Amino acid sequence: MKTESTRVTSFDVAEKAGVSQATVSRALAGSTIISEATRDKVLQAARELNYHVDERAASLRQGRTRSLAVVLIARLDGAIDAVNPVAHAVLAAVLRSAGRRNLQALVSYQASEAEFAGDFPDRGLADGMIVIGTTANAAAWDYFRALDDGVRKVAYWGGASNDLAFVRPDNHGGARQLTEYLLSKGYRKPVFIGASDRYQQQFRERLEGFNAAMQAAGLTAQTIDTPDDLMREEQGRRAVDLLLDDGIDCDSIFAACDASALGAIEQLRRRGVRCPEQIGVVGFDGIAAGNHSFPTLTTVRADFDAAGEALVEMALADSPMSRRVPVSLVERESALGPKV
Amino acid sequence: MKTESTRVTSFDVAEKAGVSQATVSRALAGSTIISEATRDKVLQAARELNYHVDERAASLRQGRTRSLAVVLIARLDGAIDAVNPVAHAVLAAVLRSAGRRNLQALVSYQASEAEFAGDFPDRGLADGMIVIGTTANAAAWDYFRALDDGVRKVAYWGGASNDLAFVRPDNHGGARQLTEYLLSKGYRKPVFIGASDRYQQQFRERLEGFNAAMQAAGLTAQTIDTPDDLMREEQGRRAVDLLLDDGIDCDSIFAACDASALGAIEQLRRRGVRCPEQIGVVGFDGIAAGNHSFPTLTTVRADFDAAGEALVEMALADSPMSRRVPVSLVERESALGPKV
Repeated sequence: MKTESTRVTSFDVAEKAGVSQATVSRALAGSTIISEATRDKVLQAARELNYHVDERAASLRQGRTRSLAVVLIARLDGAIDAVNPVAHAVLAAVLRSAGRRNLQALVSYQASEAEFAGDFPDRGLADGMIVIGTTANAAAWDYFRALDDGVRKVAYWGGASNDLAFVRPDNHGGARQLTEYLLSKGYRKPVFIGASDRYQQQFRERLEGFNAAMQAAGLTAQTIDTPDDLMREEQGRRAVDLLLDDGIDCDSIFAACDASALGAIEQLRRRGVRCPEQIGVVGFDGIAAGNHSFPTLTTVRADFDAAGEALVEMALADSPMSRRVPVSLVERESALGPKV
Repeated sequence: MKTESTRVTSFDVAEKAGVSQATVSRALAGSTIISEATRDKVLQAARELNYHVDERAASLRQGRTRSLAVVLIARLDGAIDAVNPVAHAVLAAVLRSAGRRNLQALVSYQASEAEFAGDFPDRGLADGMIVIGTTANAAAWDYFRALDDGVRKVAYWGGASNDLAFVRPDNHGGARQLTEYLLSKGYRKPVFIGASDRYQQQFRERLEGFNAAMQAAGLTAQTIDTPDDLMREEQGRRAVDLLLDDGIDCDSIFAACDASALGAIEQLRRRGVRCPEQIGVVGFDGIAAGNHSFPTLTTVRADFDAAGEALVEMALADSPMSRRVPVSLVERESALGPKV
């Protein structure tokens, strides 16, 4: 009799069922060569021995891993709980999508150079790779750009570079819609605030959408460039200080992301400026904290479920093509209109 | 010459180096049987052929996976971006801790019964398992409790049951500290609000810490039980309605978690009650949204890094023992004292 600590193998099942090990393998893999009677015999023996197929061994024999590598890039200077909630939402959507396809997700957290690793497919660990993370970690993007030779199957969320295969929200369309919303509420002098780092492609797209809407309305677009090395909330606070201290003539703020918008709302309150009456604020992302600010934050939210699906499909595709996911306006209190 | 699509194997390296395949395996695994000269020859051949060890095959031969399974339990009714930020912080900490030990993390998102799976170690996919998630998904906990026969190596964050091996914050000590803080600020009639579901062990521990501090101060502890099937923010809103509508004599709220505290703050504002002057509010968790509420939320924050380390250690241990991680008070604006 086998002791509990010894693993039951397909050979044990074969012996008990009175068939060959190859027959056990075929029966458990669902091969149609095996008769129903034989399959039943094998299944019963497997049940009685409490035998589980070793899926890693099985997939190895089949020459594929049924796994996706998912890389979560974090800020080097951030706390463990300071990862952008958007990244977590995309990660959760990717995990759910992978689960639906019976794919495993090998997830790694990478912030420092010692942690950077993108060779999971080369090491036989995954069939494809998905990279999610902050553009603020330039060293990480340098690493992944150098790694991406066009041969590997990699899908990027956000995508610090337009050369890579990325999934992004409809940044241009969403920003245009948000700007039109601001104008429809009676604001006439919105200022766009955001960092224009070389890896910050998404903010650039949002700025272009903002500019397009302003131009279509015959209005002048104003912009404040914030340093990308600050945390996003702090960028919003600094932008408000700059606006107020320099006496810039504006009635609303379009922040390139929700975190900066929340920082701006906080700083307006500290400085005694009423939002939305004196200065309205909108963000972009749809993070949960926007529900709890005062006033609550009007923003644009990406379809995260669609993003998860798109990323998994792309990571498995032979020639991944960049894709956009739709966005929707979330109207709350922070830009309900200026008090005349 | 090999084409690009064909995988280089250890046999190719052996041929090029003029040694046996077994020697290549031993040399690359760092075996001391191999001479330095032979090892150098093998390494050079491997480099020239751009050979990567297939780590899945290698670990399979070694009889261990170098992988941890991580299960993220979500609410069945929640949006993909509504996963508790605490769960995401713990997940990130687990991923970082696993990375430090060169362990892979196989992460799965589980909300519906069709998704429940905890047999990763049985299937030869992982050396141990970590379960993180909401207690609000009772079906998931039923599943994992039934699965946990004490033989498997499983470590739970939070832990819906005291029979399981869990990592939890110092709930009792943290709640006691928070309550003492409330009293030190001049509040005398705090009410504890939280759900007392059978799987809600952490809230129960926080309630006990609250009761202990109140008793030590010679004060009467009041409690409002909220239904666990509501989202946590909504539980906070309902509790405020109940307090105000029933005219319960209280001057502060101790919410069992930050999300409920944020709901309470929001509802107090809607109903024209000033916080912290008329009613102070404290939460428990330390989620980022507490930075953006108005007033910002005073709370207790767990050491997530320590939680990640503890969970990974436990998942690999032969007889995992439950552990506590320290908490620290985060003082902000929501309980600065009643205006007399």
